[in-house]
Amino acid sequence: MKTTARRGPTEEISLEATKILARLIVASTPEDMPQDVLRAAHSCVLHWMGCSIAGSSEPSVEIALAAVSELRTSPQASLLGRSERVDMLNAAFINGVSADVLSFSDTHPATLIHAGGVIGSAILPLAQQRPISGAQWLHAFVLGFEVACRIGLAIYPWHYQRGWHITGTAGVFGAAAAAAKLLGLDEQKTTWALGLAATQSAGLRQMFGSMSKNLHIGRAAQNGLFSALLASKGFTSSEQSLEAPRGYLNVLGNTPNIDAITADFGRRFEILKNTYKPYPCGVVMHPAIEGCIAVATSQDISAREVARIVLSSNPLVLELTGKKRPTTMLEAKLSVYHAAAIAVICRRASQYEFEPAIVLRPDVMHLRDRVVVACDASIREDESRVQIDLIDGRCYEHHVRHVAGSAARPMSEVEIEQKFRGLVQGRLAQHKAEALISAILALEKLDDVAVLAELATPDPSS
Amino acid sequence: MKTTARRGPTEEISLEATKILARLIVASTPEDMPQDVLRAAHSCVLHWMGCSIAGSSEPSVEIALAAVSELRTSPQASLLGRSERVDMLNAAFINGVSADVLSFSDTHPATLIHAGGVIGSAILPLAQQRPISGAQWLHAFVLGFEVACRIGLAIYPWHYQRGWHITGTAGVFGAAAAAAKLLGLDEQKTTWALGLAATQSAGLRQMFGSMSKNLHIGRAAQNGLFSALLASKGFTSSEQSLEAPRGYLNVLGNTPNIDAITADFGRRFEILKNTYKPYPCGVVMHPAIEGCIAVATSQDISAREVARIVLSSNPLVLELTGKKRPTTMLEAKLSVYHAAAIAVICRRASQYEFEPAIVLRPDVMHLRDRVVVACDASIREDESRVQIDLIDGRCYEHHVRHVAGSAARPMSEVEIEQKFRGLVQGRLAQHKAEALISAILALEKLDDVAVLAELATPDPSS
Repeated sequence: MKTTARRGPTEEISLEATKILARLIVASTPEDMPQDVLRAAHSCVLHWMGCSIAGSSEPSVEIALAAVSELRTSPQASLLGRSERVDMLNAAFINGVSADVLSFSDTHPATLIHAGGVIGSAILPLAQQRPISGAQWLHAFVLGFEVACRIGLAIYPWHYQRGWHITGTAGVFGAAAAAAKLLGLDEQKTTWALGLAATQSAGLRQMFGSMSKNLHIGRAAQNGLFSALLASKGFTSSEQSLEAPRGYLNVLGNTPNIDAITADFGRRFEILKNTYKPYPCGVVMHPAIEGCIAVATSQDISAREVARIVLSSNPLVLELTGKKRPTTMLEAKLSVYHAAAIAVICRRASQYEFEPAIVLRPDVMHLRDRVVVACDASIREDESRVQIDLIDGRCYEHHVRHVAGSAARPMSEVEIEQKFRGLVQGRLAQHKAEALISAILALEKLDDVAVLAELATPDPSS
Repeated sequence: MKTTARRGPTEEISLEATKILARLIVASTPEDMPQDVLRAAHSCVLHWMGCSIAGSSEPSVEIALAAVSELRTSPQASLLGRSERVDMLNAAFINGVSADVLSFSDTHPATLIHAGGVIGSAILPLAQQRPISGAQWLHAFVLGFEVACRIGLAIYPWHYQRGWHITGTAGVFGAAAAAAKLLGLDEQKTTWALGLAATQSAGLRQMFGSMSKNLHIGRAAQNGLFSALLASKGFTSSEQSLEAPRGYLNVLGNTPNIDAITADFGRRFEILKNTYKPYPCGVVMHPAIEGCIAVATSQDISAREVARIVLSSNPLVLELTGKKRPTTMLEAKLSVYHAAAIAVICRRASQYEFEPAIVLRPDVMHLRDRVVVACDASIREDESRVQIDLIDGRCYEHHVRHVAGSAARPMSEVEIEQKFRGLVQGRLAQHKAEALISAILALEKLDDVAVLAELATPDPSS
């Protein structure tokens, strides 16, 4: 550590946060990972792969791959859920797009970052270029997750409110850190990799509801991996890319909490706070969905009887998922109106209920127009009060205190396994799916992570 | 046009600037280009190619190419000044890096955007994928230049002062627009291409003095081309990516001047205001260099006699080029202290005087420590007052009212040709250099622009 006798620790961090973070990344070893962190990482890796495999033939992925195909890339790396291969940077990109496309990703509640898909997509292709053990890879994954969420914590909520899609803009640092670790970069080169990530950080929330939202996850993975690759060859960047007056934290943030980046690094792990979604859509509308399903099921309500549905929710619900009349799957996944309607009509909210055929069904469109959202800042993000008024005058209420999948009511490891099986069903042969689960749940004992990429692609016959 | 009877034109633009811009791009034709605009474009293309060829073996380029080589790309497109070929997106990237590395680029004075290298690098690789006539290509180049500078005008100076490297962050739109035009995108897809550019816009001024500054130009070219390629396949984005409350102009800008983007589009051309540098370094320190050369030459001053050099300059000089003790070429190019020293000692400021051997020479280091910069907001960016005090008490002054290469004293077409010849000397065979000049100065008559890429690469024997 630099000799800074007359400066307190906070001031030191604010003066050289980038270098300190690089030093912490370089110093960390697989042996530093507690057992509960490894288990949390197993769930996160399994869950991300399931989402990517399930999303791998959506239009966002097909179209992105059509563009990449114009480059006639070398077949270096696998695409999850698909039989094509592309070069490692484009594999990071396409796998990132497929991770996000169903809006079914893991969520770090304090920042709304969906980190798993960014970090995993960035470093899986590396394992197909050189032998990487499960222990090394899982450690890099945890480090990358940690870096992304901590940089997010330093600038959330101002950054997100300004209009930045934080999964992309903070995720790129995690991707760079994880890749830097696997490439064995020293402190100098890790510092450059973080700077290269900072200066490629991009992604606007304005894109929500379009394919470009999915692009952010792919580009964060790809740009992070490219940052580490460039730095490994000696490509230089600023060494104060985070903390400088014109560095990342001050240009894309406002009065950042710089200490959040390095305080208790290696002792506190953000991945332990990660959450998983029961429904494939914007996480803030989950409480409303759970409440609507509960009322419709318990009272056996049919859509024809409903006069109106009143959702009392946290204000973020309208801000993030306020699309009144969605016409596509990507829009429906950010429409609390659609979600409430299908929750009542179908009494569930699986991928099927967000497909265009359902989004454009007359009864669904009719009911969603009877949904009213009442924003109330005293209601938490994982909470909702649902009231359904019937035409005949009856009125039912349900209070979701903490929705399933929230930090207070987390999905169990077994439930995540079940979710994975549901996601990959029909896309992977069952023996491959079970082999993938077994490999990931003991990832730190795997000799070569390339096996994961092979198991996550369909058999030629399937 | 949308029917908006009760809205004035300004309000209409602020409500749908992205779509209006897309419509203007689609409607523009090569026949719309006035003769003086074509001539200005000839100079800009010639100048950019010269800078890229001259910069093509600098470390930033070698290292970036070493990273790209790990991808084993297909040999789709040429690299200016080099014999290797890579895929078209990576060609856009590497050519963009080489365009910037010498800090010798063209400058749009009102925004400080160096547009030529971004736009040219983005669309030259396309001409090696499909037949593109000189008239089409030059038209797309002018359109891209226009779009980049107009989006820059909408957010300058707040955006630049905040810390964004505007050549990258606005340049990506120009690259996307030019590529969209050559790919023949319709209004819908051009709108998406602009949105894809918006959500990939990145680059921090904090990187100045490191290789990552060069990266910004390469990535803007590459990301702009990729935006158009994705949109051409149907990849969607927001359709209000510029003007929405959480769109580009409001997230990366502050109270933007949205009208600047489309007002008089096709009647006023920003490329007519483009300027070219006599010295390969930060443009704001040029007046000081000219003043120092003038005094040192006219009074035959030797460095040993100098007590101090006082530069009265616009405040941007210290803000952008205030590096007191540079150690690398990239740092020296942003050090007014180094520049003043070599201007007095060498009485010129060519690429040679920024090489590490000169940057680290004891007499240069000694003299630069005697340079004092006095900032004065009443002095324009193209102006400087130089005072050199000698040890024996003599004192000489020189006032540079408008530096050579500024808008008020622009480089002539012939001078730009001469600069090109100097840049490519020793890198291209003379017959190729002259053929390239001839082809570019009549670009609108060229059948196939792929010829330019071939002429701009060295013979196997050279």
